Amino acid sequence: MAHDAPLSPLAPKGFPDMPAVEGVRFAAGAAGIRYKGRTDVMLALMDKGTTVAGVFTKSKCPSAPVDWCRAKIKSGKARALLVNSGNANAFTGKKGADAVKLAAKLAAAGAGAKESEIFMASTGVIGEPLDASKFDGVIAKLAAAARPDAWLDAARAIMTTDTFPKVATATAEIGGVAVRISGMAKGAGMIAPDMATMLSFVFTDAPIGADALQAMLSKSVQGSFNAITVDSDTSTSDTLLLFATGAAAKRGAPKIEAAGDRRLASFRKALDAVLLDLAHQVVRDGEGARKFVGVEVTGADSAKAAKRIALAIANSPLVKTAVAGEDANWGRVVMAVGKAGEKAERDKLAIWFGDVRVAHKGLRDPAYDEAAASAVMKRQEIDIRVDLGLGAGAAKVWTCDLTKEYVAINGDYRS
Amino acid sequence: MAHDAPLSPLAPKGFPDMPAVEGVRFAAGAAGIRYKGRTDVMLALMDKGTTVAGVFTKSKCPSAPVDWCRAKIKSGKARALLVNSGNANAFTGKKGADAVKLAAKLAAAGAGAKESEIFMASTGVIGEPLDASKFDGVIAKLAAAARPDAWLDAARAIMTTDTFPKVATATAEIGGVAVRISGMAKGAGMIAPDMATMLSFVFTDAPIGADALQAMLSKSVQGSFNAITVDSDTSTSDTLLLFATGAAAKRGAPKIEAAGDRRLASFRKALDAVLLDLAHQVVRDGEGARKFVGVEVTGADSAKAAKRIALAIANSPLVKTAVAGEDANWGRVVMAVGKAGEKAERDKLAIWFGDVRVAHKGLRDPAYDEAAASAVMKRQEIDIRVDLGLGAGAAKVWTCDLTKEYVAINGDYRS
Repeated sequence: MAHDAPLSPLAPKGFPDMPAVEGVRFAAGAAGIRYKGRTDVMLALMDKGTTVAGVFTKSKCPSAPVDWCRAKIKSGKARALLVNSGNANAFTGKKGADAVKLAAKLAAAGAGAKESEIFMASTGVIGEPLDASKFDGVIAKLAAAARPDAWLDAARAIMTTDTFPKVATATAEIGGVAVRISGMAKGAGMIAPDMATMLSFVFTDAPIGADALQAMLSKSVQGSFNAITVDSDTSTSDTLLLFATGAAAKRGAPKIEAAGDRRLASFRKALDAVLLDLAHQVVRDGEGARKFVGVEVTGADSAKAAKRIALAIANSPLVKTAVAGEDANWGRVVMAVGKAGEKAERDKLAIWFGDVRVAHKGLRDPAYDEAAASAVMKRQEIDIRVDLGLGAGAAKVWTCDLTKEYVAINGDYRS
Repeated sequence: MAHDAPLSPLAPKGFPDMPAVEGVRFAAGAAGIRYKGRTDVMLALMDKGTTVAGVFTKSKCPSAPVDWCRAKIKSGKARALLVNSGNANAFTGKKGADAVKLAAKLAAAGAGAKESEIFMASTGVIGEPLDASKFDGVIAKLAAAARPDAWLDAARAIMTTDTFPKVATATAEIGGVAVRISGMAKGAGMIAPDMATMLSFVFTDAPIGADALQAMLSKSVQGSFNAITVDSDTSTSDTLLLFATGAAAKRGAPKIEAAGDRRLASFRKALDAVLLDLAHQVVRDGEGARKFVGVEVTGADSAKAAKRIALAIANSPLVKTAVAGEDANWGRVVMAVGKAGEKAERDKLAIWFGDVRVAHKGLRDPAYDEAAASAVMKRQEIDIRVDLGLGAGAAKVWTCDLTKEYVAINGDYRS
């Protein structure tokens, strides 16, 4: 089932050192959900007092664990996170809701916590019932084995068609006390073959209230996980959870309840960095990807218009195949700007590939050097920039190219 | 430049007999715009009194000929149509507008008409200036050679990466008098490689006023050209023009000015049939297409919601690659329904591939036979149907599969 793709050529050269986040412990195990010979379940245990914030898929057909998390996150309290790969528990109706309840019961017993403090995510096949009783045999063992440093084990257990585990970390200070933000993600396409989901879980020892955490997360996600696209397909299961154990309070960090508190400046910056790093890693593991592409739009009527235009470019199959073909085809960029539906004036438009301006004032740039543009397109990382010349609205998004391998991964695996 | 792709396996088995439409004559020639060894310019001459209606791209960066046609169509009067392939005259700024003016002047002289009665379309490379002086040498010859039966010559001259010329015809009656509706189209993707455009030109001898013509065309296009997608990319140049010469008035057909006139019932039906036939042919020539896919959504909140959901399915790269892989992957259909943003209740959803119901009431259909579903997916023509179980809103759209050949056509040709 899992596609044995070679490591993405865009993978980071190595993993960062991932020290413990005080108040969190992890373990991974094999529950036999679907895969053979690999781990497929991850349990994270968090100390009492942990707060939580989350962002979920906008799909109108969300998975059962997404429904569960949306209901439970209102309390802002968390003690454990249970994640499985191999089955998304999506489009599974009442059976799916029952499976989530059973899993919560088992995890609560294992963690010594209330069911309402259990958070969950599932990724894998859509439409197949998830046999949650399979968790029964492993949860007690995982709870006993959980360690603060098992980041990569945890990140590997939640992979589906990912070709590498995705982790990132940063430090910040609150009231002069160092705090840590570390996280993991999985995803290799908005949806991997027959699989669903982009999942990310981020942990900090900072003592921050749930409301402040939620406000910061909702804002930070706009420029990171909500600014990437592999294939424009939104999963039924996208879940991003941010847990704050508050353990740094013992070291003197002040407890902060308001997102606007100035003492959060450093934390906010570090959170942005961790989310952006993880989001970029998802694009770098995009199915069949050979090129990592930044799309920046400036001079738009508004930031919203800029983002819509940037996503129209980043989602265009014709732009993405041109990048795959190392073709500085700015006519397709013009097309994508035009189709976005936002205000654009042809005669004010300028387009760059890397630092080569290829179009200017509604015309091919007279100074445009095709050889220089071709050299840019041969790079592994390519920046496309469009200036609309209308206002101050700007946005940046990231995507990958569309290759024959994408079609093979998504079209060949059953035939 | 032009991609020598083999004939699409989805091409119609032959061409229909295309008799003359009284009042219209065609000729095709080679102006050397870009291609060697093939025709690249088409001139249609229409009798005095011809009315015209049009529908154009929604792109915010339209081509120069689209700007021209939008301005001239207000008068509702037409005498000639000049179309070239090889250059889209898009993103060409003031030079592009000047080229259109020169072309109109040349065509007006050749047709013995006013410049304001000349309609134009261009399809090909974006961003390269169009040298309209190249029309100078050919227009007089084309005007002299124009014949009522040169349909296929005309349809071939406007092709870019199309693998076959596209024509369709139907008859209707108005006030008991037979009238004819015949047309041509080109397009093989919303945009073909480095090329722009879906173009279609339809002609009738019915005596119908421009306002009535426009109302009927705008309505008919919703279920035909606005209900197809190859790759979700909107061209800068999409143009559909409907010309009515009125020649049937000599045979006693009444002149009709109001779109609501009951005597137009037969005409309206025939117009729908011709537009749908041409639109289907564009999908059948979709770049790299191997499967012709109908997507029908019923039971939605409204017709608009149904169409948005149908297009979300038809544009999903993951649904389209699954069809290419002959995989009855209804989980991806659920995903696409969910991402459309319209109301959907998981537990009321049903999905069919052909006549095989694969999902029902938010669950895999208990009676679902995987072998039967696989047999459906092996067909060349596949119907996907989704019932939302909410209301009476329904829509149908058409698309093709997403294959490695699509990526090759759009990504390999310059590398």
